[in-house]
Amino acid sequence: MRPYHVGIAGATGLVGQRLVARVAEHPWFRLVALGASERSAGGAYGDVTRWMLPAPIPKDVGTLVVSGCTPSDFAGCDLVLSALDAPVAIEVEPALAREGLAVVSNSSALRMDPGVPLLVPEVNGASVVRIAAHARTGFVVTNPNCSVTGLALALAPLDRAFGVRRVVVTTMQAVSGAGLAGPRAIELLDNVIPYIAGEEDKIEVELGKILGTATAERFAPAGIAVSAHCHRVPTLDGHLEAVSVELDRPPTPEQAIAALASFRGDIDGLSLPTAPPFPIVVRREPDRPQPRLDRDCGGGMSAVVGRVRRCPVLTLRFVVLSHNMVRGAAGGAVLNAELLAAKDLLPRRSRA
Amino acid sequence: MRPYHVGIAGATGLVGQRLVARVAEHPWFRLVALGASERSAGGAYGDVTRWMLPAPIPKDVGTLVVSGCTPSDFAGCDLVLSALDAPVAIEVEPALAREGLAVVSNSSALRMDPGVPLLVPEVNGASVVRIAAHARTGFVVTNPNCSVTGLALALAPLDRAFGVRRVVVTTMQAVSGAGLAGPRAIELLDNVIPYIAGEEDKIEVELGKILGTATAERFAPAGIAVSAHCHRVPTLDGHLEAVSVELDRPPTPEQAIAALASFRGDIDGLSLPTAPPFPIVVRREPDRPQPRLDRDCGGGMSAVVGRVRRCPVLTLRFVVLSHNMVRGAAGGAVLNAELLAAKDLLPRRSRA
Amino acid sequence: MRPYHVGIAGATGLVGQRLVARVAEHPWFRLVALGASERSAGGAYGDVTRWMLPAPIPKDVGTLVVSGCTPSDFAGCDLVLSALDAPVAIEVEPALAREGLAVVSNSSALRMDPGVPLLVPEVNGASVVRIAAHARTGFVVTNPNCSVTGLALALAPLDRAFGVRRVVVTTMQAVSGAGLAGPRAIELLDNVIPYIAGEEDKIEVELGKILGTATAERFAPAGIAVSAHCHRVPTLDGHLEAVSVELDRPPTPEQAIAALASFRGDIDGLSLPTAPPFPIVVRREPDRPQPRLDRDCGGGMSAVVGRVRRCPVLTLRFVVLSHNMVRGAAGGAVLNAELLAAKDLLPRRSRA
Amino acid sequence: MRPYHVGIAGATGLVGQRLVARVAEHPWFRLVALGASERSAGGAYGDVTRWMLPAPIPKDVGTLVVSGCTPSDFAGCDLVLSALDAPVAIEVEPALAREGLAVVSNSSALRMDPGVPLLVPEVNGASVVRIAAHARTGFVVTNPNCSVTGLALALAPLDRAFGVRRVVVTTMQAVSGAGLAGPRAIELLDNVIPYIAGEEDKIEVELGKILGTATAERFAPAGIAVSAHCHRVPTLDGHLEAVSVELDRPPTPEQAIAALASFRGDIDGLSLPTAPPFPIVVRREPDRPQPRLDRDCGGGMSAVVGRVRRCPVLTLRFVVLSHNMVRGAAGGAVLNAELLAAKDLLPRRSRA
Repeated sequence: MRPYHVGIAGATGLVGQRLVARVAEHPWFRLVALGASERSAGGAYGDVTRWMLPAPIPKDVGTLVVSGCTPSDFAGCDLVLSALDAPVAIEVEPALAREGLAVVSNSSALRMDPGVPLLVPEVNGASVVRIAAHARTGFVVTNPNCSVTGLALALAPLDRAFGVRRVVVTTMQAVSGAGLAGPRAIELLDNVIPYIAGEEDKIEVELGKILGTATAERFAPAGIAVSAHCHRVPTLDGHLEAVSVELDRPPTPEQAIAALASFRGDIDGLSLPTAPPFPIVVRREPDRPQPRLDRDCGGGMSAVVGRVRRCPVLTLRFVVLSHNMVRGAAGGAVLNAELLAAKDLLPRRSRA
Repeated sequence: MRPYHVGIAGATGLVGQRLVARVAEHPWFRLVALGASERSAGGAYGDVTRWMLPAPIPKDVGTLVVSGCTPSDFAGCDLVLSALDAPVAIEVEPALAREGLAVVSNSSALRMDPGVPLLVPEVNGASVVRIAAHARTGFVVTNPNCSVTGLALALAPLDRAFGVRRVVVTTMQAVSGAGLAGPRAIELLDNVIPYIAGEEDKIEVELGKILGTATAERFAPAGIAVSAHCHRVPTLDGHLEAVSVELDRPPTPEQAIAALASFRGDIDGLSLPTAPPFPIVVRREPDRPQPRLDRDCGGGMSAVVGRVRRCPVLTLRFVVLSHNMVRGAAGGAVLNAELLAAKDLLPRRSRA
Repeated sequence: MRPYHVGIAGATGLVGQRLVARVAEHPWFRLVALGASERSAGGAYGDVTRWMLPAPIPKDVGTLVVSGCTPSDFAGCDLVLSALDAPVAIEVEPALAREGLAVVSNSSALRMDPGVPLLVPEVNGASVVRIAAHARTGFVVTNPNCSVTGLALALAPLDRAFGVRRVVVTTMQAVSGAGLAGPRAIELLDNVIPYIAGEEDKIEVELGKILGTATAERFAPAGIAVSAHCHRVPTLDGHLEAVSVELDRPPTPEQAIAALASFRGDIDGLSLPTAPPFPIVVRREPDRPQPRLDRDCGGGMSAVVGRVRRCPVLTLRFVVLSHNMVRGAAGGAVLNAELLAAKDLLPRRSRA
Repeated sequence: MRPYHVGIAGATGLVGQRLVARVAEHPWFRLVALGASERSAGGAYGDVTRWMLPAPIPKDVGTLVVSGCTPSDFAGCDLVLSALDAPVAIEVEPALAREGLAVVSNSSALRMDPGVPLLVPEVNGASVVRIAAHARTGFVVTNPNCSVTGLALALAPLDRAFGVRRVVVTTMQAVSGAGLAGPRAIELLDNVIPYIAGEEDKIEVELGKILGTATAERFAPAGIAVSAHCHRVPTLDGHLEAVSVELDRPPTPEQAIAALASFRGDIDGLSLPTAPPFPIVVRREPDRPQPRLDRDCGGGMSAVVGRVRRCPVLTLRFVVLSHNMVRGAAGGAVLNAELLAAKDLLPRRSRA
């Protein structure tokens, strides 16, 4: 298969760096354009980027000249992966789509747009047919907030088997979720900050859209009540979430574990290159998952669930961990792009 | 007033050190005996203790010879403050009480004994009359688990005003709560551990006892459903807890804040020396309380509540912080002792 | 004694907050003016300041209106304590001095000016007569960089007794030393940064000036070779420094300890209010000083020295800890002001 | 080539786990025996081990039954990799060697034995001929302390080119260096511990032996004076060391960098499977190396050197980082084993 030509918008930030690393070694994609803000445009990627990943900048990428994020900057692309900040994305992403590009975005800007898919492939990947009408012209698909993805993965099989009604979730989120402008060390050493601007709202609305239904016309959110309590803790990567959930048909913990562990979801059989062997890995130890030990499970693409037990207030409670920078951001976006490619929904604009 | 003569059982551990520091400078108490395990007995306190507090060992205490924890070791005491581990406390504390000592314990051993008060003075201090029959003979009173005290303080005024029905609480607990044998640095750096052995059970049962009712015969637990999710986070002191609560008579957030901020509780007017000016301090900022910034509020004796807002699943949600080593352990025990003294319930065994 | 009227320039930053807290409760000083940048001027101090200290803003200070930093803003002051950033201080401080104010600065701007004293009172407080000619007109005195003060204190008695020739020092510095704009949590969790811009140069030149000699005309630096290796580590307060020093007359470790522990220096007998009981506290344990356990020694004003032992390469080696925000910044500046007051070198400009 | 049969002694600790992971996927070695203390013997490796690595226990290893560490336990082995604690190793390792086994040890027990090689392959790999006489009978070779390896790598090319005379080194060491029984979180959060028992002595003597000369009879240490200051800092992996060195023939920093970057050492051309592309990687940025960003350089097998600059006291100063658990422990031991295999110095005891 001839690889799709891929541009990355917002390539210099933390998520952008992760996108660069994943696309550079991807079997289906070829990295051809790197877009950033005007401040960086014109410089070599290696010079203008404060590279934060342990592995070095991929070969040949450091010397790529960074462009802006206009449609002409991505003229040679089939697909643009976007890690733009929301205020920029709200302008740039529709503009790119209007020019016929597929935009696969990690930004929050358009997630709740009723015409834009909010995708976690295993959970609602089937709804991607929703954009079939747009295919080969441009469109935008999004992945959820980094604290929503793992939660949606863990709740999806419970919802399918037992019916999710209400959710109380307390997050303990890693600093990488705040990007390069996150909290200062002096704010977070020996501390927890019980607030992340906008995060609780995102969890409460995005979860409903992901677990909702898609028609040809619109996405109808599920009627789920969600209460989120968000915290920033001194971890580097991996959002840990303590969840109590009320279910229509109460299972035993073992029945819940069986539903979680056997979940394959809407991408079963598609052989997407970066899909993990299991979307959900259930741990039986009393003290897992832990961010540092479990965030890289499935290459950072699996949600790890543990401590599944009865809840004395709602029905069931458990802990879920998901790598916020991989499954919750760059890896989630790339998996969305793989889904689109596997369904033959990506335009072919670039020349061979 | 002639000071009460006080012994400390379990004086070398983290809580014991805090007890030593608080009793040594207390206006009503005189420190006369330090008991510890056989391993330490016979040595000078300053030699056998791995002192962990920033302030030095109080003057004249470092040279005190450590004894064991038998009744004869505390023969010169009116009162023994106990920071013994539960398996030891279960034997030692009743033995001391049988000899006529008042035992004010931080241990979990006897907390749920139906004949033993489980006291948070502001919340259920009035129930201390329950032990009037024992006064001047020996008895044991206890304070709750370090993660329960702040929660009980925050829920008490809500319960009195609006009726607490169900509670979902997620704790983010500091390492000092685990004592000197807590998690290794290699286990907790860049990490959160979603499990603390026995902690969730303690929260779920102790809270009901504290918010329950006391008769002459027994303590009847309140009929409250509690779901606790406990986590160890990389903070030194201060347990932070995210709470969703269902109330019989739903208040507005402002009504809840008014109830919290005006709460004085069962010690109003008693002028206990280490009682904080306000048992609950309500913060209005969006990102408070934070463990490092707020744990010392009221000398570590106030619970700090913030982010009071509606809960989309239960009625109300908020965050509460309490200093686990002060209000949640040594300071809570000393406040209990002050309450007993103020109510004239302490035996006078020591000679002038 | 009628208190001196004090203004604080740069009052909203981390050091400025510490100055506010210290002046507000000072027996000799009265806080009358708070100056900051134009962005903050005009607002109430409590509103424009991101207050970071555990203790609350001192009573009556939160409502003070913040001004700019011109001479007229401090017209009612005898003395201005400055925590201004160097690029601002270089303009503002001389301007204030020209108007007759005593400026006691923590800024690096004028430290190496040959006409400006660089004071650590115990070490070179006698040289303060150097400014007698300026007294009652304006002048500037400075305290050294936060990583120099503890080092200078520890080396001063060794220099007096044994003659310091060469010093290799490796610092492990706390994040508060970088102020509110210090490293991000994502940069410093599970990490050490082996570089602090400008810091090594400051140590290497300031140390020589402090240990040098003062004549009526100028400060002559000591002929000491200094090699500094600076690191930022994940601690909140307290700069720890590992030192190897070459001495003219090699002492035994015990002789060195005796010189350190008995040091009182140039303020002996002056009874300065915030001078610590001992400028240097020597610890005998093998693993002290430690930042968290020892930084508050002497109210944060003592340097704590430990591990004094022979050096196989130079003469002697040891570890020294000093609270960078207290002795190394705000506390050092206030102590300098106390020295000036005790020597009657402060102008009396304010009306009674 | 038929793989060598390998046993691991001390397989359940932190270093033992790293050895298991490296041997399990090694092209030249086959893991056939796992020895541990009596407490663990008889259990399945996956059951008795508190596995701490992010990657799971290698396939088929979790079910291996753990044995003791007697010669008969390793009867089927050619080679035993040892991560035993020194008090055990001092007995076990010679016993294994007497039975004809090659013992490649990470333990400190025999490092300074004049008949035992202390190997860093690039630095003194040529001296391995020293054990040729023993080959095909048993022998012990060791790798240095985890804080010595990176230092020895960085100093070797400087010694060869310019002659090392004296070294002052300050270490900032990660908690993994202390194994599973390292400091508690409560000891190390917001803190640095300026002491590691025995570590400074090890650095001072081991470095001399590694940079010394080997004859047929003995290892003669180099006449280098070394002063080590050791610290435990809150990092997980990667020992950072600030070094000042005096050289016989002072180079410019650029000449030193050239010597460091071009160093290949005694294994050049051997194609050892886990040797890094470059034993030393020199960084030019002002603030590198940093533990979290650079410890995995060369798969954790490269020493990363930065900030090479003149020293005002000795000749040259720089910072070096080395992964203490990889190059400084398990990876160093495995590289030693590879060197022995490449030189055909390993016995062939196992049957095909």
